[in-house]
Parts: sequence; C-alpha cells; structure tokens
Amino acid sequence: MQASIDTLVVVGVGLIGGSFALALRRAGRVRHVIGVGRSLANMQRALELGVVDEVSTELGDACARAGMVLLATPVGQMGALFGAMAPRLPEHTIVTDAGSTKGDVALLMREHLPGHLARCVPAHPIAGSDLSGAAAAQFGLYEGRRVVLTPLPESDDDAVATVRGLWQACGADVHEMGAHEHDSVFASVSHLPHLLAFAYVERIAARSDAERRFDFAATGFRDFTRIAGSHPEMWRDIALANRDALLGELDDYMAGLARLRGQLAGADGEAMQRTFERARDARTRWYQRFLRGQ
Amino acid sequence: MQASIDTLVVVGVGLIGGSFALALRRAGRVRHVIGVGRSLANMQRALELGVVDEVSTELGDACARAGMVLLATPVGQMGALFGAMAPRLPEHTIVTDAGSTKGDVALLMREHLPGHLARCVPAHPIAGSDLSGAAAAQFGLYEGRRVVLTPLPESDDDAVATVRGLWQACGADVHEMGAHEHDSVFASVSHLPHLLAFAYVERIAARSDAERRFDFAATGFRDFTRIAGSHPEMWRDIALANRDALLGELDDYMAGLARLRGQLAGADGEAMQRTFERARDARTRWYQRFLRGQ
Repeated sequence: MQASIDTLVVVGVGLIGGSFALALRRAGRVRHVIGVGRSLANMQRALELGVVDEVSTELGDACARAGMVLLATPVGQMGALFGAMAPRLPEHTIVTDAGSTKGDVALLMREHLPGHLARCVPAHPIAGSDLSGAAAAQFGLYEGRRVVLTPLPESDDDAVATVRGLWQACGADVHEMGAHEHDSVFASVSHLPHLLAFAYVERIAARSDAERRFDFAATGFRDFTRIAGSHPEMWRDIALANRDALLGELDDYMAGLARLRGQLAGADGEAMQRTFERARDARTRWYQRFLRGQ
Repeated sequence: MQASIDTLVVVGVGLIGGSFALALRRAGRVRHVIGVGRSLANMQRALELGVVDEVSTELGDACARAGMVLLATPVGQMGALFGAMAPRLPEHTIVTDAGSTKGDVALLMREHLPGHLARCVPAHPIAGSDLSGAAAAQFGLYEGRRVVLTPLPESDDDAVATVRGLWQACGADVHEMGAHEHDSVFASVSHLPHLLAFAYVERIAARSDAERRFDFAATGFRDFTRIAGSHPEMWRDIALANRDALLGELDDYMAGLARLRGQLAGADGEAMQRTFERARDARTRWYQRFLRGQ
C-alpha cells in the first residue's frame, strides 16, 4: 500500500519543509498541507506559491487536525514546539522532523511526548542549500538524495513505514541507523567542516588587511568557504545539539593539524606528501562514488 | 608598443604553461614556442595539440634560442632548472615563472642567476584547476584572471613591461606587489585552506569506519574538500617554499579553532553565533565582489 497522509502540518515552511510538501503533493500523497511558522511574510509567500493550502500561527489547532506533523525548524526550537503540540496531538498522528542531529531530537521527544513515542520517527534528509524560505522550496529537491531515519525503540513499524514511504515518494534514498551512529557520522562529514570553514573565514576577516587578502582569493577559496555562508543560528544549534560527537571530531582534527604543523616546521616534505597523498586518494575515490550516486 | 616575443621556451607544458602559450599564440604575440619537459608522452601530446611548435629535453639548447623563458613547474624544481639554464642564457632573455610562492623564487634567481637579475621577473598567475598536463591547456584560461608580478629591485622596467604586456594579452588583470606581501596574502587565502582540506580528509580516511562516513558526505563536503584532490607534490613544495608565512597563518587558525572549541565545550552559543555571523557576513560580501570580478 502506498504511504499517504490526509492532512500534513509542516512547521517551518522553508527549503526543507516546503520541498517535502511540494514533492508529496505532486506525488498525490497528501490532500491538505497546513504551514505553521513565525514569519507571516514567509507564510504568505508559501500560500501564494502553492507550497501550502493553509497557514496558521496556532500550532496546537493545526496539530489537532494532522495525520502527520513535520518539524522543519532549527533543532534549538524543537523542544518548545514538541511541548506546545503535546496536549493537542491526536493519538495516531505521526511526528517526524528534519533536523541534522538525531540523539537530541530523540531526547526531546522523550521529554515532551513521553506518551506518543510509538508515533515518533526522527529523520534527517541530507539536502541543503544556501537558499532559505518558502520561495526556495522546489519539487525535485529530494530526488536521489539520502534520508536517514533513526527510529526510536518504541516507534511503531507502520509509523516508520509511512515516513519511509513518503520520503521515497519524494524520490529519496532512505536509510536507517541508530541516532548515536548518525550523530557521529554527521559530526565528521558535515558539522566539523562547517565549524572549520566558519573559523577560517572569521580569522581572515579579523585581520587589519582583510580586504587586501580577500582581493586575491580565487576558486579554491570560493569552494572551501561556501559552507561558511550557511545560517549562523542553525549551525550554532547543530553544533550545540551534537556537542559531544563534534568535540571528539574536532579534537581528532586538531591533533592531525598539530602533527602536520610539526612536519611543516621540521621541513619534513616526505611526511607531508604522504599525508597529502592519502587525502587526495581518498577524496578522489569518494568523488567517483559520489558522482555515480548522483 | 605591443609586448611580443620571438621565441618562447615553456618549461613544464601543463595547464599553466600550455595555456600561456596558446593564449599568446592566438593573440599573435609569439612566433615560435619550444616546450621543455620531463614526460615525453606529455611533450608529444603538446606537439599534437599545437600547444608548442617544437619540443626538447635539452633545456640549455632551448634557452640559448629564447627571447623569454617561462618556468611553469613545481617550485621545488626551479633551483635546478635556473642552475641548468644559467650558462646558456643570452643576456637579454627574460626569465619568468608561474610559481605560487614568490620570496623563494626570488632567492633562487639570486642564487643561480646572479648576473641576470635585470631580466628576471617573478610572476604568479592565479588560475588553477584539478586538471593537469598539456591536454588541459586552454586558450581562455587567463581571461579575467589575476596575475601578480613581484619584480626584483634589479628588474629592468622594460622586462617588467614585457611580462605585464604578455599576461595582459592573455586577458589577465595584472597586479604588482612585493614578494613578502604576496607570500603572506597567498598563505592565508590559498595555501592554508589546502593544508586544512588535506588534513581534514586524511583524518576521516584514517578511521576504521571511513567508508561508512564517506557514504553520507554530501555537497558541503564535496565543495569543502575539492582542493584536497590537488597535486600532493606541488602542494608539498608550495608549503615548504612558503613555510614561514604558512606557519604564521596556521598558528593563527589553530588559536581561533581552540577558542571555538572552548566555546563549544562551554556551550557558549552566543559566542559561537557571533563567530559564525562574522564569517558568514565576510564570506557573503567577498562572494558578491568575487562574482562582480568574474
């Protein structure tokens, strides 16, 4: 049976939530979409663009009519949102999210929705962009993209199957893993590089001759720093939400960097070249695989 | 008067040297191009593709006929090459290079070509690619790209004017600065990010579950690590050649990262957000300017 939902509530109608709604609507898997959000201007835009059928600032009222609620907000807002929806949530309503960290979302669900865990299915769609807001929503955002589900031990099989089926209807390649493994993997391949890129650009910006330096930055700089253009509040929340795993990755990286510094200071060209070669080889292999997966 | 050269010797006929030859040929600024290199297969390809008119493995013989010699090899090879060409270099032949570091090239010129400094003009075209070899050479590589000249105090005005004019004929935007400033600027906006990206990928590759981690790397990772696919030998040479400036940049970065680590460990979200915002704002301003300059 095809997974479908009668009424979907999307909290945070931006790129992530808006694109989910658009893709499900195109696939005929949802009848009615209610957008909930803080910015009235953005809600208005979501209505005009047909991303949602209805908008509301009353989360409880919207949830009372929902077959499924998707939280597509910064992780830092989710605790308050779970708490606000708890008293109004029908027994069978599925609650899912699109947060970049999963251990903390599971904890928040346990804290605020302790009687509803069977219908809770944390999820993380791996899709991003520098764009944000309802106007950035697009039908095909999830085509061929990965989505990781991290079901709770309590999650119903049929709630998991519905969330899986809806993401598949969006064209996504759906995986499952534990929240702990998820957070460790994403600390290393996503959260750490964001931290490194932010720190790097901030250091140059702090120089008295920053403008002169930026003048000669070229395409290598452009690509290396693209993620430093990401949303500061969102990445603050992600870093804090995944603090333990991220500190571990950061310490491992800083130790590696200190070793490389020692090689450079000691003019140990052979050791540096070996490090660079291992990185180049791994990156080349990864990129071949990434292109095949696109 | 338009700058032009009768016979140009290009040592290292890859992306950089080959594209210089092609652009000058198209602009009618060179009559005859001799390619000199270590790889016969690459030299053969350069001949077939019309990047050069003639190939040679005899650097001295080629230089004896040259109006200008361009070294477009890794910086680590330049000392030996300057030494080999020194006895055969005609008095008026201009010697220039395309190395990414300039203080060390100036030192090598002083060491190996002490009687020829008036005709030496170190240069750094800011153009790169993951591609290499003669087959990567392209007519338009330097259109709108920056080229930095770092003339020696001894450099003749007319040698500098010729090198400047030839790069301008390739479509480049030519700047001049001292070698010391050049090396400091490029350590921060180019050499450091390469080191950081190499170190980052190498640390993940060293993990026992590296494949699992790489499986979930996405577009942010792709862009952040693109430069980790760069040539290990070339970047070892650049790092060693610009060691002092690079160590300074690395120390500044590591101090910034340690501060950010402390903020994360102390869950100081406000301080982290300020750091991220300064980075995002600077990166956004830079990118607007970069796009206008393209």
